[in-house]
Amino acid sequence: MMVKPGTNFQNRREVAAAGLHGPLMAGIAGNPATGAYSIVLSGGYEDDEDYGNIVIYTGEGGRDPRSGKQISDQQLTKGNLALAISKERNAPIHVIRDSNHESKFSPKRGYTYAGDFYVTEYWREVGKSGHIVIRFRLEGSYQQTSRPKGEVLPSERREYQSLRIVRDTKQSRKLKEIYDYRCQVCGMAIELPLGQRYAEAAHIKPLGRPHDGPDIIENILCLCPNHHVMFDNYAFSIDPRLQLVGPLKGRIVISPKHHINLEFLKYHNEKFFNN
Amino acid sequence: MMVKPGTNFQNRREVAAAGLHGPLMAGIAGNPATGAYSIVLSGGYEDDEDYGNIVIYTGEGGRDPRSGKQISDQQLTKGNLALAISKERNAPIHVIRDSNHESKFSPKRGYTYAGDFYVTEYWREVGKSGHIVIRFRLEGSYQQTSRPKGEVLPSERREYQSLRIVRDTKQSRKLKEIYDYRCQVCGMAIELPLGQRYAEAAHIKPLGRPHDGPDIIENILCLCPNHHVMFDNYAFSIDPRLQLVGPLKGRIVISPKHHINLEFLKYHNEKFFNN
Repeated sequence: MMVKPGTNFQNRREVAAAGLHGPLMAGIAGNPATGAYSIVLSGGYEDDEDYGNIVIYTGEGGRDPRSGKQISDQQLTKGNLALAISKERNAPIHVIRDSNHESKFSPKRGYTYAGDFYVTEYWREVGKSGHIVIRFRLEGSYQQTSRPKGEVLPSERREYQSLRIVRDTKQSRKLKEIYDYRCQVCGMAIELPLGQRYAEAAHIKPLGRPHDGPDIIENILCLCPNHHVMFDNYAFSIDPRLQLVGPLKGRIVISPKHHINLEFLKYHNEKFFNN
Repeated sequence: MMVKPGTNFQNRREVAAAGLHGPLMAGIAGNPATGAYSIVLSGGYEDDEDYGNIVIYTGEGGRDPRSGKQISDQQLTKGNLALAISKERNAPIHVIRDSNHESKFSPKRGYTYAGDFYVTEYWREVGKSGHIVIRFRLEGSYQQTSRPKGEVLPSERREYQSLRIVRDTKQSRKLKEIYDYRCQVCGMAIELPLGQRYAEAAHIKPLGRPHDGPDIIENILCLCPNHHVMFDNYAFSIDPRLQLVGPLKGRIVISPKHHINLEFLKYHNEKFFNN
């Protein structure tokens, strides 16, 4: 059965019967073998953020069942690992909003199916409680914009497509010219017809919520698409001496015209080591 | 001066004075050294198509100045080469619609600035006239949807960003599993943390207008991001015996579970050889 985004349900039993989210209590459905299948934004986590089409979701675990307070660190296991696996598989996740979830996108009562989202990133950080929480950035498809409740777009495309979007800013182009479109990791430039070259700009501290890294050359690397994918997924990182950390060896290529701000490298490194 | 998309002008002199499109007659402003700067959709070309956010624009040349009819083949030179260069530089192009341009997005009179678009593809084909024309696919930014005249989104983001969007469909995922996420050109798989792998699906006959290639495994290749960029840009192609054509040598990896439809390869090959 295909459920339309925006559909409302009175209780979790109805949500489960519709095939959207099986468990009646747990916020994350799925396991590390299958990946996550669905989540419920229940309002239980102080670190959740909801921007409609973009949701910053806090993982499970480490909370006192009585008080609901975060009393210890979260681990990348069980439901949290399932969400991480879904990210790497680029698999869609049903998102359901509970009326208790504090957000203008929540229903007045009961539960609403918000549509299918993709985990685009995850990382560990110190939450409001002082304990480590795992946070997941989920994105609806780019056809779906933030809309008032009840007014949703047809979900057809979202059912079939996930996206990798590579943004190219003015600063990015300036940096790529400094390196003549060569990758700072492998030195290769992709040659296109007509004598042009292709490279991608990787923001070290990512653009967009919740990172809000700046679009300045000090925060950008010029990479080939392969190393860009690896860098964005924390498959490798770069230490303050510009040595590669992880499966790649050696040092990145650096131009005297390109000063990397070590604060941004530190931000990326922390996520690399936490993961 | 920043001109808002949707702004109307009485004549080409006003369009030029606003800094949007200098030449008073030519449809394409710019040259092969600088790339194209702007175009006017003037209604002179029978092969133009206008879907609002996506425009299929016919290149210049080969027309009889009296009758306006296409009487010979177009060449990848001058304005046409300038547009091709802009594609490879990922540079924005001002698009202006003339009221003579047959489209529901055209103004009733005069000229309208439609916003900044990016050339995402170009190819040669036999036009309605029977002569070869060069066609360019232009895309507005993804924030801009097809809207009625006069109602446009702020252009701020479009000024600073161009995008590469990688779509991943259900069929794509199925194919990637057949190859265990190894690139069919280089054999490499990108290893992500948690033991997952990453590959991209390249549609041989592209999805979307005007190609409308189907989303079936027979029309998809499993590639690493680097070879995906090269394939989509016709930097190499694949012949019917599955041999690489262009700067890469050898044969692609093929699984007995993956039957490539040679019609689609032929479609890609024609564009490769034409370019």
